[in-house]
Amino acid sequence: MIRIIVTGGTFDKEYDEITGRLFFRETHLPEMLRLGRSRVEVTIATLMMMDSLDMTDADRQRIVEACRDATDARILITHGTDTMVETARAIATAADARLREKTIVLTGAMVPYAFGSSDGMFNLGSALSFVQALGPGVYVAMNGRCFDWDNVVKDRALGMFVSRAERTSTSG
Amino acid sequence: MIRIIVTGGTFDKEYDEITGRLFFRETHLPEMLRLGRSRVEVTIATLMMMDSLDMTDADRQRIVEACRDATDARILITHGTDTMVETARAIATAADARLREKTIVLTGAMVPYAFGSSDGMFNLGSALSFVQALGPGVYVAMNGRCFDWDNVVKDRALGMFVSRAERTSTSG
Amino acid sequence: MIRIIVTGGTFDKEYDEITGRLFFRETHLPEMLRLGRSRVEVTIATLMMMDSLDMTDADRQRIVEACRDATDARILITHGTDTMVETARAIATAADARLREKTIVLTGAMVPYAFGSSDGMFNLGSALSFVQALGPGVYVAMNGRCFDWDNVVKDRALGMFVSRAERTSTSG
Amino acid sequence: MIRIIVTGGTFDKEYDEITGRLFFRETHLPEMLRLGRSRVEVTIATLMMMDSLDMTDADRQRIVEACRDATDARILITHGTDTMVETARAIATAADARLREKTIVLTGAMVPYAFGSSDGMFNLGSALSFVQALGPGVYVAMNGRCFDWDNVVKDRALGMFVSRAERTSTSG
Repeated sequence: MIRIIVTGGTFDKEYDEITGRLFFRETHLPEMLRLGRSRVEVTIATLMMMDSLDMTDADRQRIVEACRDATDARILITHGTDTMVETARAIATAADARLREKTIVLTGAMVPYAFGSSDGMFNLGSALSFVQALGPGVYVAMNGRCFDWDNVVKDRALGMFVSRAERTSTSG
Repeated sequence: MIRIIVTGGTFDKEYDEITGRLFFRETHLPEMLRLGRSRVEVTIATLMMMDSLDMTDADRQRIVEACRDATDARILITHGTDTMVETARAIATAADARLREKTIVLTGAMVPYAFGSSDGMFNLGSALSFVQALGPGVYVAMNGRCFDWDNVVKDRALGMFVSRAERTSTSG
Repeated sequence: MIRIIVTGGTFDKEYDEITGRLFFRETHLPEMLRLGRSRVEVTIATLMMMDSLDMTDADRQRIVEACRDATDARILITHGTDTMVETARAIATAADARLREKTIVLTGAMVPYAFGSSDGMFNLGSALSFVQALGPGVYVAMNGRCFDWDNVVKDRALGMFVSRAERTSTSG
Repeated sequence: MIRIIVTGGTFDKEYDEITGRLFFRETHLPEMLRLGRSRVEVTIATLMMMDSLDMTDADRQRIVEACRDATDARILITHGTDTMVETARAIATAADARLREKTIVLTGAMVPYAFGSSDGMFNLGSALSFVQALGPGVYVAMNGRCFDWDNVVKDRALGMFVSRAERTSTSG
């Protein structure tokens, strides 16, 4: 059994046709898994629904605790891309032995699922597969790749995730 | 580098608005990878474009040879779901040592990518991840799961892939 | 009040993921009107769900009678494109004075609504507008245009509807 | 020949995956007409690309002049919904005889076309049909209906257009 922890992010943003603004309502995860004909056994828990730029240390602490307290050894977290790496670090560096035994994969999307041409379905399929295949550790699954938590950065200009080595070579 | 071998299947079916029939034109793989913001390094080779129900032993032999001759150690094959398991078996049982060193993942779709509500993006993200994460072997990645070639069947009534044990329990 | 008579056609075709074939289930008209935020008062009646190539004279007679018996003066018919013109003729030439007082517009789609990139929403918006704006008569609304029933043919090679004059000039 | 004047509005908003904001790039009108298999002869002119809440009197004056100067007798304007009625009034009350001879229809969308589940295709089909079918005047085509410029208001709470009589009855 895999636990999916929903925290919001672009994944779940919708368009409010009355105000013309983007907002959060309910998570699209169940619909996305149905659309993908997923047969992986999961439980979905919506922990928060927020833009990751608005996350505080307290919010991140709640995510760490949710990972620690989950009885499942494999956890997938949907998360805004902007501070996904910070949350991965918070989980990986938390001083709790129970976290060391788990496979935890964070993923997100650059385009809201509700906007049709989303990378969300692709990323969800990817993250759900890495979380099954990899051993204990904290990872970021984006752009079809999977990075160790301490070897990934978001290149904000390009809108993609790269390893630290790649980052140095492009910006150097 | 991962090699993607395209053989057709529901993945790539389109609607011909003149005849009202489903047909194959070009593969949608490059567009799907772009949409998924994939940054995995791949080469795409279209070997054939056919419904897997129409595949002959000779067609399957061509797929085996394409896997054998590929210089890449990791290969993803897009394939019709109806005989995906047969092709997996043909690859796994071919008498060639070079095949034993490779990670080969077959995937497909229940709904054409071009029809909007497809499982294709999800399956592509999934298969591309399993092919990176798993060791040598021949696998079928469908429904978010990954099966060993000799432990999977398509449940045609349900339209999904299950392990042999699951099959027995549901049909028994 | 406008009466919408559903007869099937490409408009309402769906993809059966078990058999890989196109088929009819329920009409998508209510969903399409909701998606279009339509506020036109309509009643929807599904008379039949069939490919218009399979329609017999008896089927067409049922459509004529449904138009005749409708208490509404404005009627929109969704119909397969292949014999849409024949049905328009059957309605226009039926010997019944009640039909002469009505505005009857037939429309359809080249691509199933369920396949995402459909012309169905565009055609529905168009036909629903012509049926409100035009006086009594029998019309075919396709490709954003509206044709009198006796001045339209489907150009099967191009997959579009043209007036008789246009047809002559292109085929001559 | 029908002239389409593009002014922006929700119709043409896109999602910027780098900033997470909605923005304007190019109009989607040509793509939408192609998707709708439209065969109506049109010329498309992008006059401005803006949110209608940001329109000044000078902007509206430019729209009036573009209508006046167009050699076509039938004009369709795509426009943000928030001040669509104000622009319709500006055109209808401008002191220029040339405007009196034209059929001018304004339309827009509640959901961006690029976001998949849009009312844009429906409204475009509707407005393009009304502009062909109606005599001289200035109209607003929304929700499948067509209103005279001086008998329509946007009900902001409901996100739809209603006649003045309907407005009074619901708010009274």
